[in-house]
Amino acid sequence: MLLPIQNENGFDLHSIAANLEGLEETIIFILINRAQFAENRVVYQPHASGFEGAGEESLFEIRLRRHEEMDAEFGRFCVPEERPFMKGLPAAKRKVALPPTGLHIEDFDVVNVTEGILDAYLSLVGEICTKVDDGQYGSSVEHDVAALQAIARRVHFGALYVAESKFQLNPETYARLARAGDRQGLLRELTRAEVEERILGRIALKVEHIQSQINPLVRKSIPADAIMNFYKSSIIPLTKEGEIRYLLNRAL
Amino acid sequence: MLLPIQNENGFDLHSIAANLEGLEETIIFILINRAQFAENRVVYQPHASGFEGAGEESLFEIRLRRHEEMDAEFGRFCVPEERPFMKGLPAAKRKVALPPTGLHIEDFDVVNVTEGILDAYLSLVGEICTKVDDGQYGSSVEHDVAALQAIARRVHFGALYVAESKFQLNPETYARLARAGDRQGLLRELTRAEVEERILGRIALKVEHIQSQINPLVRKSIPADAIMNFYKSSIIPLTKEGEIRYLLNRAL
Repeated sequence: MLLPIQNENGFDLHSIAANLEGLEETIIFILINRAQFAENRVVYQPHASGFEGAGEESLFEIRLRRHEEMDAEFGRFCVPEERPFMKGLPAAKRKVALPPTGLHIEDFDVVNVTEGILDAYLSLVGEICTKVDDGQYGSSVEHDVAALQAIARRVHFGALYVAESKFQLNPETYARLARAGDRQGLLRELTRAEVEERILGRIALKVEHIQSQINPLVRKSIPADAIMNFYKSSIIPLTKEGEIRYLLNRAL
Repeated sequence: MLLPIQNENGFDLHSIAANLEGLEETIIFILINRAQFAENRVVYQPHASGFEGAGEESLFEIRLRRHEEMDAEFGRFCVPEERPFMKGLPAAKRKVALPPTGLHIEDFDVVNVTEGILDAYLSLVGEICTKVDDGQYGSSVEHDVAALQAIARRVHFGALYVAESKFQLNPETYARLARAGDRQGLLRELTRAEVEERILGRIALKVEHIQSQINPLVRKSIPADAIMNFYKSSIIPLTKEGEIRYLLNRAL
């Protein structure tokens, strides 16, 4: 995060949007790096991890769980926008000193939409990676974890701070809709079609530009429209789902 | 790795070089992602991790060790070019099925130059990151580990396969120099100044191109000459040091 998102008047929606924009390259870079390895479907299959003492869990699931257990001890999930994919993680072993978040919910995990992120990401892998098996299972799942975490950070950062910031701009309307439990009304109120269009266009241009001078003999590139569609059908809707959950649970 | 590096005649130096070229973007992407966080010097300081039960180790060292312990169980270090930074790691908990490596040394760790990589990388962090403290310690050390592993993979892949491939092209000369323990002679024989110049020029262009359309308000960019110098003064010389070690230990 390059920009402070709060000032004396509360949250600044432009700075929040700017931080979300800055996370786009991080996500794109990691997805391109993942695509340098084959899809390696077997790493997602249950009972096939080849990991000592493992049962049903796939190699991917074992890696994600082990990684999040480590991250939990480092205090990652004390940060509002860092929501875990796994349950039952250990407590933090270090104090994470955070400035006041400015958020108004008790439990950040009410906005946790990792289940939807995971489903969408696993479909995306099939679109950006070569559909073969190159045997590089360890590298594949390692990059999966990095990609999922970057995507989840973007989605939950948006869910929490965009929602709070919009609430502050229009507290009466949002409080009324939230009290009535009106999900459709909240979704309508939150949605800015022209902002979404701008994001999608920018994503496609970035994916194309970053790869425009790649040597295709040594580097696999990923299709811009796959990433744009991933934003359109998953990242943006899941962010809005998180925003709705935030607003439905916000202190009124 | 996109290209097979062996054929019926042994190693193909062009394919090895092509794979090294393909790793350049991976390294550049990860370094750019690291630079989105401040230098956060405290994470490298001993006795300052804030980690429960930790002693002298810095937060960075704890993270690197914990990450490599996990990786070791996943079998990462069974792969020739994956050399660990830490000692005393646990055994693999899964079988890593590798095709014959075609290498002719008993212990891949004779080429391990991670100590040099670590020193060089820690200097580089000070050049590419803003020299402040943004409190994002967990993210900083997480990106450090990813960057170090990408750099180490590039260096050791080159050290092992470039050396073996050059040996195969000129076995008498290399065997004579290796038997005589002639490090200077090996270094002279290995060095291709024009290839190094080409790599350096390409690195600078890539760093510039990838960042040329970045929005500086939302994204920190890293200087192309810092990355070019890192290749010049660290990645290339450390790869050659690894090549020399390989040749001095190769079965003759």
